[in-house]
Amino acid sequence: MGKINIKQKLSLFSEHWSPKIISEINDYQIKLVKIKDTFVWHSHEDTDELFLVIEGKMKIEFKDSTIELSEGEMYVVPKGIEHKPSAEHECKILIVEPRDVVNTGAAEGELTADNDVWI
Amino acid sequence: MGKINIKQKLSLFSEHWSPKIISEINDYQIKLVKIKDTFVWHSHEDTDELFLVIEGKMKIEFKDSTIELSEGEMYVVPKGIEHKPSAEHECKILIVEPRDVVNTGAAEGELTADNDVWI
Repeated sequence: MGKINIKQKLSLFSEHWSPKIISEINDYQIKLVKIKDTFVWHSHEDTDELFLVIEGKMKIEFKDSTIELSEGEMYVVPKGIEHKPSAEHECKILIVEPRDVVNTGAAEGELTADNDVWI
Repeated sequence: MGKINIKQKLSLFSEHWSPKIISEINDYQIKLVKIKDTFVWHSHEDTDELFLVIEGKMKIEFKDSTIELSEGEMYVVPKGIEHKPSAEHECKILIVEPRDVVNTGAAEGELTADNDVWI
């Protein structure tokens, strides 16, 4: 595995809500995702999930609050906590989480993406 | 834990080669480090180590090659691989690795930093 340029990797795909793996560290993965509009309410029962905004702005809605993240800001959603990400305009984010996490958690549906796509 | 602004966190310290923890995801940690000049040869026998350059340029020397990383570029040093980071000018980096990793690996010495400092 060579060095990885995040912006170059982001230039290789355009679809939304479809995480692309760019690297692994032990059994954790680094993923890039482009998001726009609103995702589904979901939680990950077994793991925390880190969001880092590379470009744009996003929101993460919780049952009792909402946070806004801009470029260079990160947030760790604790395991088991229901959350609903959204972005008014396209936002490019980096995610850190263990291998094999499904993007929609237990809320499988039309937004559930293949969780093993490398780019 | 609220949202974390990487540049704001970087503004809170100035010393080199002294990792500061800014977040945890499960038993993994996100650390910020400012580096300048040359570190010691070392390896981490039990874990890979992810470097992401936030600002500046750095090199990672290996026994048989050297890579250069610029802003927005990352590299995962595989476990057990000897490496020697360096930066001609100050470089600000983000590291992802499991909790309790010592910065100098088994090569303890004057550059060994406290591995449990949050900022």
